[in-house]
Amino acid sequence: MTKTNIVNNIQLSSALDLLRDVIQPDMLKVDKLVQDLTVSKAKLIHEVGLHTIKSGGKRLRPMLTLACAKLCNYTGESHIDLAACVEFFHTATLLHDDVIDKSNLRRGNPTANNLWGNRESILVGDYLLGKAFQLIGRAKSLRVYEVLANASVVISEGEVLQLAKVQDIDNFEPYYMQIIKAKTAELFASACEVPAIISDSAESKILALREYGMNLGIAFQLVDDALDYSAKQEKLGKAVGDDFREGKLTMPVMLAYKKANSDEKNFWHKKIIENNRSDDDFKVAQKLVEKYGAIEATIKKATYYTQLAKKALDNSFPDSFVKNILTDVLGFVVAREF
Amino acid sequence: MTKTNIVNNIQLSSALDLLRDVIQPDMLKVDKLVQDLTVSKAKLIHEVGLHTIKSGGKRLRPMLTLACAKLCNYTGESHIDLAACVEFFHTATLLHDDVIDKSNLRRGNPTANNLWGNRESILVGDYLLGKAFQLIGRAKSLRVYEVLANASVVISEGEVLQLAKVQDIDNFEPYYMQIIKAKTAELFASACEVPAIISDSAESKILALREYGMNLGIAFQLVDDALDYSAKQEKLGKAVGDDFREGKLTMPVMLAYKKANSDEKNFWHKKIIENNRSDDDFKVAQKLVEKYGAIEATIKKATYYTQLAKKALDNSFPDSFVKNILTDVLGFVVAREF
Repeated sequence: MTKTNIVNNIQLSSALDLLRDVIQPDMLKVDKLVQDLTVSKAKLIHEVGLHTIKSGGKRLRPMLTLACAKLCNYTGESHIDLAACVEFFHTATLLHDDVIDKSNLRRGNPTANNLWGNRESILVGDYLLGKAFQLIGRAKSLRVYEVLANASVVISEGEVLQLAKVQDIDNFEPYYMQIIKAKTAELFASACEVPAIISDSAESKILALREYGMNLGIAFQLVDDALDYSAKQEKLGKAVGDDFREGKLTMPVMLAYKKANSDEKNFWHKKIIENNRSDDDFKVAQKLVEKYGAIEATIKKATYYTQLAKKALDNSFPDSFVKNILTDVLGFVVAREF
Repeated sequence: MTKTNIVNNIQLSSALDLLRDVIQPDMLKVDKLVQDLTVSKAKLIHEVGLHTIKSGGKRLRPMLTLACAKLCNYTGESHIDLAACVEFFHTATLLHDDVIDKSNLRRGNPTANNLWGNRESILVGDYLLGKAFQLIGRAKSLRVYEVLANASVVISEGEVLQLAKVQDIDNFEPYYMQIIKAKTAELFASACEVPAIISDSAESKILALREYGMNLGIAFQLVDDALDYSAKQEKLGKAVGDDFREGKLTMPVMLAYKKANSDEKNFWHKKIIENNRSDDDFKVAQKLVEKYGAIEATIKKATYYTQLAKKALDNSFPDSFVKNILTDVLGFVVAREF
């Protein structure tokens, strides 16, 4: 890590800390609500639900809902319900994804399907989806309802699109962008949009926060896809290579493929299109991605989307403490460890 | 089959035909809506969704929504949305259930997980759940929303309860009733309740249709559980023995267990509590269920619930053509082939 990088990382992690600080009282209410709503006649639901939420990471989505509510000077209590709702949607997706991808670990923790089983993960996912929809009802806003119900459809549609066989690496990029918008960015967009709706913000602000969330979400997924080939991540003990092992065609591979010589193109073709790969092939894949600077190029694309997100904010919101935090969060999204 | 049984069966199947006739124009609209709403950017969703709906059977749940709307003299168009919504909820449950139970066949047709795979079934199930929630929004009734969002939570809660290990066959009945109310009867209850809500019916009528649907649903599941041990079903080429093979403790077994001698009790204990069973054991289980008349006794219990359903209708609705059909449907539910 260079000296500048160290300084940047300190600044960026403090951006996340500032975000946490500013929404902390609300986040405690969200935590309490999440705890209460996972209590069920079926004890298993509480255990599986809370385990998965705890393994889910930084909880960026509900934090964004709360921060956007603050940005819109919202004074009610529905943002707590909606943040919990966004968290439940995300957790349900994680539970089903881990079954689909047969994942045993998530951020170093055993997945629910690993600890309890596939049946349990599928059903608790369904339960949390139902709870998410109950929470939306509490906001008593038809528009919020439409945004979040639409998100739930778009997310699963994106996941199904991702199942289709890749036919043509050269022309996959528009399809890839469609998938990551649907499966990842749509929930970020909705998480940021709904607090603007419940605060009766101007139409331009509602659209701006949707744009902010959508572009942040695209950047987030691009970075995630880059991290999965990162040697640095591997050194830090993080899991890498999942996308390759599952045969997912992601941005770093598309960018490496573009610059590849004909032998290397054959390698990618065989591994991704013909699905003829072993776990050992990942080392080769990782080297090819590195050789052509495809991680840096992916991050560059992600940075472009964070700039769009920043622009959306700048066009519709005057400067403020919370706006600065939301801007700095964009830096955090692209500057995770590589 | 005795002569009286033949006559009864003719009458009962004509009860279902009458139901179909009276709602046919509406059902065509539901079919069209279901077709339209499963069209997606992901072609797979349409194929998997329609395949599962077609394999799902008689489509009793949406038919009941339409018939109850008629009973309440509803004149709008929201009952079409809600019938499709109920169908989508049910289909999503089938898709996830077949993955959970590892079923290869449903009513003689290959299941979606068999034809396409588990990943596809889980995700298309999620997609249909999302679409179901979009449909609820179109009715623009907060109460309808609360009823159906609650149903979706209760259904998955029931399914999770069913996963818990049976500890004590003697005292399982209350737990079993709780499970079948949740996983099956709740959707029937909601399917019948929501048309009363959208027609602004009196509170007593809303509650009566909920009672009707709940008791019909309990009877429906009891009969389903009886059919799974029926030699007659087996002769007709229908699948039997699924519950036993999955170690589900259902009413016919509980009733056979009550009357069993100590050797027989040991058999059930070993097979259900200790999960120590092979496929061949089903023949023995079936004989024990038959020996103690446990199928007939289960049907008797189901009949009791249809009487409660009839009473709920009679207390709140004057005689009418549609009411007669809804009453006759109760006979159909308990008099399927044994």
